[in-house]
Amino acid sequence: MVEPPSLEKLVQEFASLPGIGKKTARRLAYFVLTRPRERAEALSNTIVEACDKVKRCSQCHSFAEEDPCPICKAREGSRSICVVEKFSDILPFENAGIYHGLYFVLGGVLSPLDGVGPETLHIPQLIQRIQTEKIEEVIFALGSSPEADSTILLIDKLLAGVPVKRSSLARGIPMGSELEYIDEVTVLRAFESRTGI
Amino acid sequence: MVEPPSLEKLVQEFASLPGIGKKTARRLAYFVLTRPRERAEALSNTIVEACDKVKRCSQCHSFAEEDPCPICKAREGSRSICVVEKFSDILPFENAGIYHGLYFVLGGVLSPLDGVGPETLHIPQLIQRIQTEKIEEVIFALGSSPEADSTILLIDKLLAGVPVKRSSLARGIPMGSELEYIDEVTVLRAFESRTGI
Repeated sequence: MVEPPSLEKLVQEFASLPGIGKKTARRLAYFVLTRPRERAEALSNTIVEACDKVKRCSQCHSFAEEDPCPICKAREGSRSICVVEKFSDILPFENAGIYHGLYFVLGGVLSPLDGVGPETLHIPQLIQRIQTEKIEEVIFALGSSPEADSTILLIDKLLAGVPVKRSSLARGIPMGSELEYIDEVTVLRAFESRTGI
Repeated sequence: MVEPPSLEKLVQEFASLPGIGKKTARRLAYFVLTRPRERAEALSNTIVEACDKVKRCSQCHSFAEEDPCPICKAREGSRSICVVEKFSDILPFENAGIYHGLYFVLGGVLSPLDGVGPETLHIPQLIQRIQTEKIEEVIFALGSSPEADSTILLIDKLLAGVPVKRSSLARGIPMGSELEYIDEVTVLRAFESRTGI
């Protein structure tokens, strides 16, 4: 091959990242080689540094440099917990500043076809946390899919007998969208959950 | 912010790569953190290793671990040189196995608006190589743009008096395309360069 082995290896490494195909990986690798060496070192060091410093919070399973994470620490004693699929789902809530309770990162949603069963998710830890921290409301913010729905159903079942309010994000028409371009299931749900004016 | 500082730094590093926006950078960074640590180390080491090992061939300016590069070495004495804009443009020729001569990476095409003048490109080195290595044919494989055309014109002018055949890749309809979706300039060029059957 024309590509030097170490360059080919770099292309392969980039191509192992999600959403990066062979051509994009090649463009990234060439770009890294044309930048000054210190930039490559910075990228390289930042990767290892992030892996060293960032852990999972033992209480909510989100990424954090401390354990418990700043949110779990600052909001200790809060009586509501917002259940999300992954860490990045916390960002829209925090950026909007609309919620001031605890979070819990499930680590995915049930998806038997992908091999994600209840044991892969942090469901027992969630149940335990709800009980020991005397949580009064669990808000499911799991996105809109059959997998998310069955995950909510399972947790709801496991919480039978636990005196805790359960809610999930409203389903409906998103802001700024034209009705004609919205799928039927969304329209159906929005119609069923129509609100008085 | 919710994101730990070292994670935010990693997101920024990824976002500094071409074609990677903030959201993609975040997805990449989270992915790197969820993989086993050895994978992150491998990525990190490969970046620095590639920067250390890969140099520019002093004869053709392509990426290589040796100088001269394997192609310049293996094809020494060849009388044709194929001028490309960047290293990756060599790959289609080598993959197709249609060309067995030398290459020369210009490092770009003239683009005054982007600050790329003749002095930024390796034009003097190309002229010199054509003369010292007694090249008989220069093939311009520079893509199809006004900038590429003016680059070819300039080099052609600088080669005035040098007894060397000059050609450039044919312009026309690409394989497998429907005429109705092809732009007018391409159709015009293909019409002007129509070939006998």
